[in-house]
Amino acid sequence: MAITLYELAGADPALRFSPYCWRTRLALAHKGLAFEAVPWRFTENAAIAFSGQAKVPVLVDGETVVSDSWAIAQHLERAYPDRPSLFGGASGMAHARFINAWADSALHPGIARCVVRDILDVLRPQDQAYFRHSREKAFGMPLEAVVADRATTVEAWRMVLAPLRLILRHQDWIGGEAPDYTDYIVLGSLQWPRCVSRFTLLEADDPVAAWQRRGLALFDGLAGRAPTA
Amino acid sequence: MAITLYELAGADPALRFSPYCWRTRLALAHKGLAFEAVPWRFTENAAIAFSGQAKVPVLVDGETVVSDSWAIAQHLERAYPDRPSLFGGASGMAHARFINAWADSALHPGIARCVVRDILDVLRPQDQAYFRHSREKAFGMPLEAVVADRATTVEAWRMVLAPLRLILRHQDWIGGEAPDYTDYIVLGSLQWPRCVSRFTLLEADDPVAAWQRRGLALFDGLAGRAPTA
Repeated sequence: MAITLYELAGADPALRFSPYCWRTRLALAHKGLAFEAVPWRFTENAAIAFSGQAKVPVLVDGETVVSDSWAIAQHLERAYPDRPSLFGGASGMAHARFINAWADSALHPGIARCVVRDILDVLRPQDQAYFRHSREKAFGMPLEAVVADRATTVEAWRMVLAPLRLILRHQDWIGGEAPDYTDYIVLGSLQWPRCVSRFTLLEADDPVAAWQRRGLALFDGLAGRAPTA
Repeated sequence: MAITLYELAGADPALRFSPYCWRTRLALAHKGLAFEAVPWRFTENAAIAFSGQAKVPVLVDGETVVSDSWAIAQHLERAYPDRPSLFGGASGMAHARFINAWADSALHPGIARCVVRDILDVLRPQDQAYFRHSREKAFGMPLEAVVADRATTVEAWRMVLAPLRLILRHQDWIGGEAPDYTDYIVLGSLQWPRCVSRFTLLEADDPVAAWQRRGLALFDGLAGRAPTA
């Protein structure tokens, strides 16, 4: 059955930068599933109204419509049990949900405070007003003020990566000997700043950067070859 | 075969407060393994010299000696495969290592800065000098200064629990439908302040507190019935 993925895009439709859409894109590649990726922009609510909500990723898999990257990963694991597993069983999935929540709650705020202003520059003019207004309302300040001290923000953010750094002393992937959805969660989080900004989040000699390089090479360089700003 | 666990104890030998020893204690209960618990104090290096290192937990399982709570959990899983699994497979174990590293690196520093001074009061006089000296050297200040602002410390610490709070909306245990080693990791972390201090780390209406109450009731109240300061 045909699979369609609605993905957040920039003014350049090839620029895909949502951490959640990247999680789904990498999960589809892990499952070896072909899909059509449809670019979607912040203000195109009508295009995904059929999903009953207003955010991407939205996956259309035959008759099934699923939104939310975590729900999509669960759907793919359930619908394609004979393909390589994303979670390695029920315990692996339960623990992965923690890592998903950690990335969202511990990694994303710091990333946003480093690159949110850069996102503005990759959007279509008609999306920029929406983006600035909604994000400035959330942060309670101009985007320029949010990122003004990002040299300090990024130092604190790097410390939050401590658990990842610790496990990489013992295993190549968060999934263990081979990458799984937990790797795609964090790779997705890092794809977001990587695609919209030239600001350096990871120092080159960070073990997390070495792990990221391995991840960028997966699936014939799917994430590594992606267009960046 | 007889199993012996060397556990950190206070002046009261029944007071066991090491987060790492609690992880092991709960793992042994999960596996349904009987064991003899031997109290050990900070300055009793000679008593565990046979393990080739100077920290507890140390597990003696027949001819096998294992130190470090993570290594002990791996040993138990490997040595007792027919008992209930601690990890639910290779992926579950790989992901659990991340949660272990998260607890150690993200939870423990804040807990220490709330209760390290209280620990002093539960130790034997001959251990107090060692404890104060080594910890004040690590913190670079008197223990009283470390905890002076713990009302603020604990507020930041509670925010670090965000990923746990998020997953508890969807599952009762970090392990999913039933508790596993990942639950014992975090329960162990929380058993440490719980046993040495009356300082309140979790607000009563925190979903994490509800999860902790479920954990304290496991194994006939093994952690819940434990002596506290």
